[in-house]
Parts: sequence; structure tokens; C-alpha cells
Amino acid sequence: MKKDFVIKGHIIWSDSLKHLNAIPHGYLVCEGGLCTGVFRALPDRYAHLPLKDYGGHLIMPAVYDLHLHAPQLAYCGMGMDLELIDWLNAYAFPEEAKFADLDYARRAYTVFADTLRSSYTARFCCFATMHAPATLLLAELLEASGLRGYVGKVSMDRNAPADLCEPSAEAAARDCEQWIVDMQARFTNIKPMLTPRFIPSCSDALMERLHKLADKYGVPAQSHLSENHDEIAWVKALCPTSKNYASVYDHFGMLSANAVMAHVVYPQDEEITLLKQRRTMVAHCPASNTNLRSGIAPVRRLLSAGVRVGLGSDVAGGESIDMLRAAAEAIQASKLYWRLIDQAAPALTFPEVFYMATKGGGSFFGKAGSFEPGYMLDALVLDDRALRTTCDLTLPQRLERALYRSAEIKLTQKYVDGTPLFEEPVTKP
Amino acid sequence: MKKDFVIKGHIIWSDSLKHLNAIPHGYLVCEGGLCTGVFRALPDRYAHLPLKDYGGHLIMPAVYDLHLHAPQLAYCGMGMDLELIDWLNAYAFPEEAKFADLDYARRAYTVFADTLRSSYTARFCCFATMHAPATLLLAELLEASGLRGYVGKVSMDRNAPADLCEPSAEAAARDCEQWIVDMQARFTNIKPMLTPRFIPSCSDALMERLHKLADKYGVPAQSHLSENHDEIAWVKALCPTSKNYASVYDHFGMLSANAVMAHVVYPQDEEITLLKQRRTMVAHCPASNTNLRSGIAPVRRLLSAGVRVGLGSDVAGGESIDMLRAAAEAIQASKLYWRLIDQAAPALTFPEVFYMATKGGGSFFGKAGSFEPGYMLDALVLDDRALRTTCDLTLPQRLERALYRSAEIKLTQKYVDGTPLFEEPVTKP
Repeated sequence: MKKDFVIKGHIIWSDSLKHLNAIPHGYLVCEGGLCTGVFRALPDRYAHLPLKDYGGHLIMPAVYDLHLHAPQLAYCGMGMDLELIDWLNAYAFPEEAKFADLDYARRAYTVFADTLRSSYTARFCCFATMHAPATLLLAELLEASGLRGYVGKVSMDRNAPADLCEPSAEAAARDCEQWIVDMQARFTNIKPMLTPRFIPSCSDALMERLHKLADKYGVPAQSHLSENHDEIAWVKALCPTSKNYASVYDHFGMLSANAVMAHVVYPQDEEITLLKQRRTMVAHCPASNTNLRSGIAPVRRLLSAGVRVGLGSDVAGGESIDMLRAAAEAIQASKLYWRLIDQAAPALTFPEVFYMATKGGGSFFGKAGSFEPGYMLDALVLDDRALRTTCDLTLPQRLERALYRSAEIKLTQKYVDGTPLFEEPVTKP
Repeated sequence: MKKDFVIKGHIIWSDSLKHLNAIPHGYLVCEGGLCTGVFRALPDRYAHLPLKDYGGHLIMPAVYDLHLHAPQLAYCGMGMDLELIDWLNAYAFPEEAKFADLDYARRAYTVFADTLRSSYTARFCCFATMHAPATLLLAELLEASGLRGYVGKVSMDRNAPADLCEPSAEAAARDCEQWIVDMQARFTNIKPMLTPRFIPSCSDALMERLHKLADKYGVPAQSHLSENHDEIAWVKALCPTSKNYASVYDHFGMLSANAVMAHVVYPQDEEITLLKQRRTMVAHCPASNTNLRSGIAPVRRLLSAGVRVGLGSDVAGGESIDMLRAAAEAIQASKLYWRLIDQAAPALTFPEVFYMATKGGGSFFGKAGSFEPGYMLDALVLDDRALRTTCDLTLPQRLERALYRSAEIKLTQKYVDGTPLFEEPVTKP
């Protein structure tokens, strides 16, 4: 039974790409895990609820990480001089192979769950490895963390190292189905997600079987789409009769409002239309696209076309699990896109990326990422006092600084689904 | 009298663009503020010196910030949706005008000195404002911080707001000269630097007078060069007979081994040749060039031509004073340069930016930024235990992670010129 309560502070949230709401010294009422509303003065009818006063701290919706790789945190920030394929072969695949060992998985995934818990992220979509036992263990650790999200056992049955390549599409699908059944039986807050790594590593036979599992169990899907030129050419060679990369996923039912496609750096117009029609969520991962030299995703084009776009850290292609930083990086990448690629694509604005990081990406998880009535209460309480200044700042200015300088501020509390995650010192009466 | 001592830990330093030295559990000997050498085993002749054992921590040379604006820290990370000229008018100029008030300056510069002291930076070149009293106060606070560096009273006598525009070239030069005399009389570790803001804000008459002051007092110079297209066009309009932007500075004696030019985003080949001939230091500021939508500096071209290149945070064009992060950002920017502008310009490597951040930029201050014998001892002791991993890492891998994930590590100690800046818990015997 979730508690009803009130939190007080400088409250900021977004309800659209263009609009920030800011209420100084406001009251955010939570009932049964859901937002009732934000009030300038506390209505009498809530006066009986316990109130936590965060004083001058900022209170904003939590942020959502739509794309990251749990086994990659162990080498995050390393080997960044390598290009994608070399990097996969030097780091990603040898590391993923280690997760056949459940003891190793426990050590590595404990670090991952701890790190994600103490980050700004409330909900996430993450890749694990092909190993069902290790992936169940990851889900167990994440379930215990208090976070919410989707975990994917990775499917690969071609073009993968022998020890990471499933023996057949049939065996892969059988293994995946059992894993889904186990996940749904054991966990409430952490849910399974179909995770074909990407088209080059999944045969048509496997994709067809995953499609059937999606329908049978009602589970969402995640994959990579149009990350870089070589990958796109590879998909074209593997699927010569397909119109384009996105249409291959679409053919297997993998584009829907229940799917996340990471990257989308080089979409054709037809692919953008398809993503829009299917209401597929794009996970924009600016740091990763830079680090792996992929390029810059045309986010302005996607938004203008009405495609849903959220943000992803893509750890360890991205070097940081910090999704406030990812929001700032999305602006930075879009500025270089404008300068170097297309001056008809204005840079993303601070309200736009704030929306993408919160309500935009949050919509993948239901009513999440805003403080509108009926939204699940996911909130961050930010102590930005370390950002000392002699200027008088508005709340949006303070929030902007918190995004750009997230490394310097403190996360005082994180509420996920109406529950505070961290112990706090008892407030004196 | 500086103390002689030994520090022990995992020691990493660079002596060239291509080469990293790493000695695990090594001994760094310091005598009279200078490095004697790094040893795998401590030679008997140093056995009598006090030894500080940093255990598993990383010890690297300190980093150097060749370009930042002290009065801008107050609004660092704000207004990032504005373009250069709007941003200057909305934030930079109104804020700089406040420094006519010495009380305000004391409050703002105290924050700046504290922040810089606790950063990874050991030595710096910073802009102040046009106000001599406030700039002397800044120098006083920085002198007390234990850091080393140059402070510049900004010179502007045209194209500036009335309250920041000096009344005449003559008055500006007189004011500047008195300020230099005061600086040299009062401070040992913080030195004056001629600081014409940039060509558009300095008349020829002022530049000529600053040139004479440079010769008379042997002080170095700093300015901005080729930051963005509009600025370059403006300089061309103001100086129609000049070959190019760099040659204007050169005409006034402002290009030399004793000068720092920030940005250099759009250099012509002739300008690169001139910078190389004059041995001028370029301060590459990747975050600022992105945030202000200037573009990406062609650092590979500069390095290949033999131009000296160090790094700058350019606070508040850049949003972070963290020069380890700036080093990672220099790699990231160069990857996008390669991808989007010129595939004949390979991305900067981790050893290259490490060199630029340490010995490369450090050379502006003398023998600084390396642990070679005779170098001034500027060193950082880094506690990277928060970067938990289940992988076995080499020292260069740990250092690479420390750069990319500098927000997550701790600065245990910073040695500047042979002196530790922070108090440390007494080590148990």
C-alpha cells in the first residue's frame, strides 16, 4: 500500500516540448503513488498528510534512460580510441561472454544496479547478454533496487562470436520464451523486453519467432537502428529486398508504440514516416554517437515529423550514466548538427531536451515524467547549492545549470513510483 | 624554502604527443619544488626523505587551463540557448559591469578562486574585466589559493557597452600600465597578462600601446582568434588591408611564444603557418565552441603543422571548469570533425589529449606538466575507486576512465609547484 504525502520545494516540470512549469515553494501532493497536483498553497484537504519540506532544493520529474547495456558498465570510459567493430571485439563481446559465469555476473550486475540506483534515472530499458540465468539475476538485483524498467536477454544467432551465438533460431526462441515466463513469474517492477541485438546478428527465422513471442506475451521490444554507415550497408546486403533498415524491423512486428529503437542517426524520410506511424520510441544517445564516431542524429527532423524521441545513455558507448548530462549533450550535439550539417535544423532548446528526458521518454513507461494529475510520482530532489553564484537566478535558470553542471550537484532524494529510494536525515520539527 | 619529499602511487605522465609513461607503485621524488625523477624502487639516496604513500591512487601531472573568464563563473551553465552576441549582451557584459563594485567583485571572485582551487587545474590564463581594482583583488585571492597563473585586466576601447568601454586608448594604456606595476609589486605567483578582448573591441591605437607595454614589462598576452564566422567577417571589415585575422595580432606583436590565442576554429593555412612560426600557444576550447555554436577547431591540422596546442575550459562558454573533462571533450569534438568535416583528419587520441592537457599546455608556464627531471612538481592524486569494475585494468585504462568519468572520481591531493594544496588525514605508521 503506497503512502500519501506532500513534498515541498521549488517544483519544475514539463508538459510539452515547448513549455516549462515552475512553482517556487510549491507543494506536490502524492496519493497512492500518483501525483494529485502541484499547488502554490497547500489546500486544506491535504493538510493532514505528512509533509517533507525540501527548502530551497529543486524538485523535478525523474529522468528515463531508454537505452543502455548493463554488462558494459565494467569497462565504461575505456577503449574510446577504438571504432565500433574493434571496440565490440576488444571489449563488448569478451565481456559479455563472461556472463555465462553467474558469480561473475553477480559481481558485475551488483555494481550496475548500485550505480543505476544512485543515478538520476528512475526507469530504463537495458540490454543484458544472451545468458538467461545472468539476466534473471540482473532483474532480481534491479527489482531490489526500487527502480522500474525493462531488461532484455539479448538474442543473436548469426554474425556473433561462437560463445555468444545461439545454436539455432528455434533454440534461441525456446530459451527466450522460458526466460519471459520466468521473468513474469518472479518480478513485479522489472519486466522482460525482446532484445534482438540488431538485424545483422538475428536471422529471419529468429526474428519471426521473436515476433510471435511479442504477441503471445505482450512484451515490448528494443533494438538498434541506423547507428552508422557500415551497419546500414551490412543490413542492406543482408536484406536486399527490403526498402530500408526500419522496414526490416517493421516486417517482424518490431516497430510499435511498444518498441524502442536506439540511435537512428541516418534515417531516410520513409523511415521517419514509418517510425511516426508506428509511434515507435527513438532513444537518442548523443554521447555514444560521438564516441563511436557514428555522427549526429537528426533529432530536429524526427521531432518535426512527430516521432517520439527520448534519451539514452548507451553505456558504455556513452561514458556516463548521468541522464541530466545526456540532456545537455543532446543540445550540444544538435548545435553541431545545425552548424555542420543542416542550418535549416535549429538546435534543440533547453525546454525541449528537458521534455525528452522526462515526459517524452517517460511516456514509454505509461504516465511518467511529469507532475500532471494521475502521473506516477517519479521525482528528483536536487541540491544545487554547490553551484555558488552571486547572481539572482530564476528557477528555469537554476534547472538549466543543474543539467549542464549535473556533476557538481547532489541528488538528495529520488522518488520512484511514489516511494523515496534513499534514507534521509530526520527533519527537525 | 620548499620541502623535499617522495610520493608513492601509480604514476602516469606524458613526455610527447604519442607516449604515455606508467609506473605502478612508483616513487616520485621532489626536491626544492622540482621533480627529480620517477623510480620503480626508491634509490637509497632518497631514503631519508619524508614519503607519502597514496596506495592504489593514480598520480598524474596537474592540468592547465589556458583560457577562462573569471567573472563568468557566476552564470556558468545558463543561457546556453543563446548565440554568442545575444549571450554576451544578456549575460557577459551586464555581469562584467558589476565588477566596478569591489564588494560584488570580492563575493564573485571568492567563489571563482575557491572553485578553481578545488578543480584539477594547477596553472591558468584567465580574463578578468576592465576594472583594475577588481582585477587586483582577483589576483590577491588567487595568490592566496596556492595556484599559479596569469590574470588579465581586459582592454576594450571600442564596440563595447558604455560602462565597459575605456574612454580612450591613452587612458586605457595608462590604466593598464599602472595595473601591471601594481601586479608585479604585489604578487609572486599570479602575474599580469595583456588582455585585449579581441580585435573588434580594441582600436589600433590601443593595440599599439599594449604592444609597447608588452615590451617594456615583459608580460605575455592573451586574446581570442577566429572563434566564429561573424567575428571573422567583422575583423575583415575593421581591418580591410590585413591579410587575415592572425596577422592583425601579429602586426601588434601579439603573436609570440609568450601569447595564448583562444579558439582558432577557422584558421587559414597562412595563419597556421604564422602561429607555428611565432610559437604561439593555441587554447583549444571544445565545449565552448560547441555551446556557442562556433564549430569545431581543426586541432589535427594545427598539431600536424607543429602549432602548440593546449586546452581551455573557456568558462562560461564552456560549462565546466573540469579540465579532465575538457580533454575527453577534445577527443569527442575531433571525432565529429573527422566524421562531419574532414576524414583526412584522424580523431585525437587519448595520449594526445593527455599531453595537450598536461605538458603541452603546461609549456606556456615553463617546465610544467610532466614528471621529467627538472620539471616543476604539479601533480594530481586521483582516487578512482568509485569507478567500480570487475575487469582487470592497466594504468592507462584507469587513466582513460578517469578522464572520461572525471565527475565520478575524487581529487585526493593537488601539488602545485612542489606544495600540496589540501590538508590530508595523517597517515598511520
